[in-house]
Amino acid sequence: MKYFEDFEAGEVYDLGTRAVSAEEIIAFARKYDPQPFHVDPEAAKDSAFGGLIASGWHTSAMFMSLLANTIKREKWASMGAPGLDTCRWVVPVRPGDILSAKMEVLELRRSKTRPFGILRNRSSMTNQDGKEVMFVEGIGLYGLRPDPAKTEDAA
Amino acid sequence: MKYFEDFEAGEVYDLGTRAVSAEEIIAFARKYDPQPFHVDPEAAKDSAFGGLIASGWHTSAMFMSLLANTIKREKWASMGAPGLDTCRWVVPVRPGDILSAKMEVLELRRSKTRPFGILRNRSSMTNQDGKEVMFVEGIGLYGLRPDPAKTEDAA
Repeated sequence: MKYFEDFEAGEVYDLGTRAVSAEEIIAFARKYDPQPFHVDPEAAKDSAFGGLIASGWHTSAMFMSLLANTIKREKWASMGAPGLDTCRWVVPVRPGDILSAKMEVLELRRSKTRPFGILRNRSSMTNQDGKEVMFVEGIGLYGLRPDPAKTEDAA
Repeated sequence: MKYFEDFEAGEVYDLGTRAVSAEEIIAFARKYDPQPFHVDPEAAKDSAFGGLIASGWHTSAMFMSLLANTIKREKWASMGAPGLDTCRWVVPVRPGDILSAKMEVLELRRSKTRPFGILRNRSSMTNQDGKEVMFVEGIGLYGLRPDPAKTEDAA
């Protein structure tokens, strides 16, 4: 397991890559953001975006999928998140895009009252042209490394 | 159509209500946030949350669905959103919850360079117990009311 104490400010984690399809853009938006430029390729052509684009919340969810896969694969002791700060959808995400995500650790602070640490980060995704399509100032909660002495006491 | 000029700072819009099911929580999380407390009811019992809870991004997407339904139903001239500011998932969202959303208009500003207005808002959802489960400082872009004189010129 990778615990709160195992992260360091300044580290940058590669969270991997995923593709975006028109089908997924439309399926997400039908459920959660059914505006014409997210669900209707024909209407989207006449919009300010000139074609179908992913909902910003979908873009954020795709970022989360890459983060969650990393948490699972690398056994990070994630305890969820209380929210996020500034998030911007800078460049539209379109069908066929290949998105790569990364997370930079900005600040680490132990909770004064609860058994976890707070990891503030700046996370982002870039597309196949190297353009940053979104960024978010995220806040993750991570479990503390168990104290071997205490574990022995408890046994 | 309801244009940028038709909103006023201080207005509060009721965005409606939706239910949350375990099936939907799991389906969203399997795709976008497959952490044990979002996808596995048994593992979730042993987590800090004591049971299955919705991904925060899912909670935000459910808020968006209520906003998007309002945009459609009331014909708001939405042109998307560039992102959001502070968002907090305050109280866990659980299967069986009934969520109600509202949006308070904080500030209205016309873009100096582009043909839309920027509507800053504080939006939130409360559950069936009246507890605020999330809030977000949102930023919406809305189309300007067409100028009848210009429309005539163009014709």
